[in-house]
Amino acid sequence: MATASPAPSYLDLAAQKRDRQLELIPPEWRLSPVPSAESTPNALEYIRQFLTAEELILTEETDTTVLIRKLSSGELSSLTLTKAFAKRAALAHQLTTCCTEIMFEDAFATAKEMDAYLARTGQVTGPLHGLPVSIKDLFSVKGVDTSIGWVGLTNNPAQADKSVARTLRRLGAVLYVKTNLPQSMMMSDSYNHVFGQCVNPLNRNLISGGSSGGEGSILAAKASPIGIGTDLGGSIRIPAGLCGLYGLSPSPGRHPYERGNPGQDIIRSVAGPMSCSLASIERYMEVLPAAASWELDPHVSPVPWRGSLASFRGKRLKIGYLVDDGVVRCQPPAERAVRDVVDALKAAGHEVFEWDGSSHKYAYELWEKVILSDGGEGCQKKIEMTGEPLIEGMLVGKPEHILTTSETHQLHADKYMYESSYLDRWTSSGIDALIMPNTPWVGYKPWTWVKSNNYVGYTSIWNLVGYASLTIPAIIASKDKDIPSQDWINHVPRGAGDKFNKEQYDINLVDGMPVGVQVVGGRFGEEKCVSVAKAIEQAMRWKDGVRSHL
Amino acid sequence: MATASPAPSYLDLAAQKRDRQLELIPPEWRLSPVPSAESTPNALEYIRQFLTAEELILTEETDTTVLIRKLSSGELSSLTLTKAFAKRAALAHQLTTCCTEIMFEDAFATAKEMDAYLARTGQVTGPLHGLPVSIKDLFSVKGVDTSIGWVGLTNNPAQADKSVARTLRRLGAVLYVKTNLPQSMMMSDSYNHVFGQCVNPLNRNLISGGSSGGEGSILAAKASPIGIGTDLGGSIRIPAGLCGLYGLSPSPGRHPYERGNPGQDIIRSVAGPMSCSLASIERYMEVLPAAASWELDPHVSPVPWRGSLASFRGKRLKIGYLVDDGVVRCQPPAERAVRDVVDALKAAGHEVFEWDGSSHKYAYELWEKVILSDGGEGCQKKIEMTGEPLIEGMLVGKPEHILTTSETHQLHADKYMYESSYLDRWTSSGIDALIMPNTPWVGYKPWTWVKSNNYVGYTSIWNLVGYASLTIPAIIASKDKDIPSQDWINHVPRGAGDKFNKEQYDINLVDGMPVGVQVVGGRFGEEKCVSVAKAIEQAMRWKDGVRSHL
Repeated sequence: MATASPAPSYLDLAAQKRDRQLELIPPEWRLSPVPSAESTPNALEYIRQFLTAEELILTEETDTTVLIRKLSSGELSSLTLTKAFAKRAALAHQLTTCCTEIMFEDAFATAKEMDAYLARTGQVTGPLHGLPVSIKDLFSVKGVDTSIGWVGLTNNPAQADKSVARTLRRLGAVLYVKTNLPQSMMMSDSYNHVFGQCVNPLNRNLISGGSSGGEGSILAAKASPIGIGTDLGGSIRIPAGLCGLYGLSPSPGRHPYERGNPGQDIIRSVAGPMSCSLASIERYMEVLPAAASWELDPHVSPVPWRGSLASFRGKRLKIGYLVDDGVVRCQPPAERAVRDVVDALKAAGHEVFEWDGSSHKYAYELWEKVILSDGGEGCQKKIEMTGEPLIEGMLVGKPEHILTTSETHQLHADKYMYESSYLDRWTSSGIDALIMPNTPWVGYKPWTWVKSNNYVGYTSIWNLVGYASLTIPAIIASKDKDIPSQDWINHVPRGAGDKFNKEQYDINLVDGMPVGVQVVGGRFGEEKCVSVAKAIEQAMRWKDGVRSHL
Repeated sequence: MATASPAPSYLDLAAQKRDRQLELIPPEWRLSPVPSAESTPNALEYIRQFLTAEELILTEETDTTVLIRKLSSGELSSLTLTKAFAKRAALAHQLTTCCTEIMFEDAFATAKEMDAYLARTGQVTGPLHGLPVSIKDLFSVKGVDTSIGWVGLTNNPAQADKSVARTLRRLGAVLYVKTNLPQSMMMSDSYNHVFGQCVNPLNRNLISGGSSGGEGSILAAKASPIGIGTDLGGSIRIPAGLCGLYGLSPSPGRHPYERGNPGQDIIRSVAGPMSCSLASIERYMEVLPAAASWELDPHVSPVPWRGSLASFRGKRLKIGYLVDDGVVRCQPPAERAVRDVVDALKAAGHEVFEWDGSSHKYAYELWEKVILSDGGEGCQKKIEMTGEPLIEGMLVGKPEHILTTSETHQLHADKYMYESSYLDRWTSSGIDALIMPNTPWVGYKPWTWVKSNNYVGYTSIWNLVGYASLTIPAIIASKDKDIPSQDWINHVPRGAGDKFNKEQYDINLVDGMPVGVQVVGGRFGEEKCVSVAKAIEQAMRWKDGVRSHL
């Protein structure tokens, strides 16, 4: 009798998955060899040499509205555009590990059909007719895995599109790649055992953040015009900030999501768009209601896009700002980003005032209690599928964090009371938006975040209260401008996270990297986020044109 | 040393509260004696003798839009109208126990200020300028108790208005009474130890339902033009059905509410309007967004009233119907109500089809699990305040119903999957609205409901999935028309609730009482509810004018 061969290890299964992934990249788009991060830190520049002039022009058009207009008029074929982004995504992936599922063949077939439909009928298939859009791995697309970075979930293609893919198809988008994320999605560093380490195309020695790190990388590499990420504590905004992008974390109920796995429902993760340009974010949100995604996802509200709120023309805005939440002090470039934006707004004549963030520490305690409350059960189930190890240092609960039902009920009440008083304060202040840091740090090498004490309180506060927050690029970290002040040097750390953050600051590590700020627009304040971001763009251009460096 | 006198019992405290309540009714509006229910079953008729011709005309104007127009133009003073409704409410209360807090003095002062404001500025204070509106006891109003039927919560006036009162004030409404409800709000019979037994003004031997039973009674007595109730399993719709009213249970997020007490947050109770007329419901919902209540309650979404959806003119509607959910079979009048509506719609040319409710049994299991999941802790805390006993037979959990966190997380997933598949089915069917029974029973005497096995599955399904549902009056139960069929007589009960319901049916008990149906409009389908209700009104008038009897 032959001995049964042992079950493949999680490492074998992961390697098999990566092999299948590589096979989906056409041979003519494969890099050989893939240059090292040390030799070639900037993926963006490296990629350009492999593109035709047409491919360069198409993929580097940051204002998606231009592409959409050309696609809709038939001036540009979807197949041509989809191929250009697919090729660039293939190159970007080999340099940054930004992709999970590669769906080029299906995308080309869809694009061809759309071109034919337009030619035949003169009608578009939706307001994003023919536009390739990248999406984070957790959104189910028929025929490909939804592995979410877990080996045990590979090799199990989805039977059907779920609400996000259905929404995008209703809009006329072409799905061509899914993008990378960390194990469990509870890290700001997109590493998992299936696909490996996602890095930042602007400097491959640094991370692109997480959990929507694959989106951060593919978009910064200009290998996608718009991507859809998710955010439960900063997972859209942190990668957007690190990659010089715009990333919108909407209020719950504004964008479809996909739930249905057992877990907490106290704070709902949200999905939202990320892009190189503000115009793309605005256009996407403007057309989103056309998909009627409240017919697809029972948590979506039929709130229209209120265009008048997205314009600030002629208004003197009232802008709050915050540079320190009292928990972890921001590294010099993160603080300067806020101050530069605020100075520019002031110079442009807007009213600016300091916002009191002293309750944010308490908000973080509530948020953390919610996030850890499953005691890691969700992860445990995935681990048991293959014996894959859990990555230490993530924001994942341990058995001692499990709440009793009575504690959960108290938490609902505490959260509601906090939300109510915050809303009262927000509304009565007359604020248009709040400008604040995205992260207290500016750049990490891989595997630094898990040692950092995981503080995401600058972003998670808005998930707790459900406010729309848009990360925008603000400044470039600079050896000349971000020299630590005496005040920074003398700062006495308030705790482990603050201490780590102070010690970790190294301007040499992040010199030349973009630094974002959040523009917080309040509950269902997506339009406010856009209008204030427009005001900032205008004010910053007036000031010193710094944004043109990005 | 003198012995300390014993702490007052819960009965003493309740009696004191009722004494204070009675003192707030002006002596000239007091009934002496209050006639018995046996001698004077119909409160509505009895009240009329005490009203002047003007008071009668004002309070019996069922189309609130007429009152609002006159108030806004100054043709009618708010003080006059508020006094008329206050007097009628005082009379109705003495006959039905519909009120909890009586706020006449404050209301008259507010009305006077509003009249003066309009006279001085020519401007209204809001779209409901000067209109008295009644609200269920659980909404906090500055200066009066929010006892919610618990002795332990009396004698503790609210420090401030909360979101519902604030919303109504922003609309220009005058708050003049709060209304009765059952202990714990988890009964369809509005009894509590503080205020006593609320009964139906159309027949004081019968209940007005619950938990918004005080609203049902005051509105059916025409002692309020519009009232705000709440609904977690039928608490607006059940009293509306029993009292011949319109009652809208909106989707969560459409109307403000007040939370902040520890409890489950899996299914959210909602607040909504109740009234004698459909026009009043429509007008209220239409003006509600003007209050921007999303600034007051962090759970409200800024969804505008979409007037075009609230009109059916020229449309052939697609209407589903259901007469039996497979759990508790409906008593003959409840079934006839649906069939008569459906026949009328069919005769008017609309498309009608039978809706499959076979999954509703499972939905009820999910709903019940959620409702019982605190194991009665919330009630226990109130009981401990005074030793007041818990009423047996309510829908309140026992310790064995407490869920573990893991079970709660599974329940979130089960609920989301059910909601998603229901939404898919709803949307793909092309349905405009679903007509179905409100309750499987037609009328109860006090204290019957607690013995009935508490089945509210005909209404609670829509709380589970978050669909808007509008109860409308449909028929009058009739000795001639609601004779049990052979099929009803032969019906083999499916369980204890079904058995009770079959045995309890007695046409002599309910002859002449109104019977409602639900018009279910889907998620955020409040406008659909209104448009289909309009179609029904029109179709029923064409058919036999039965509605004119109500």
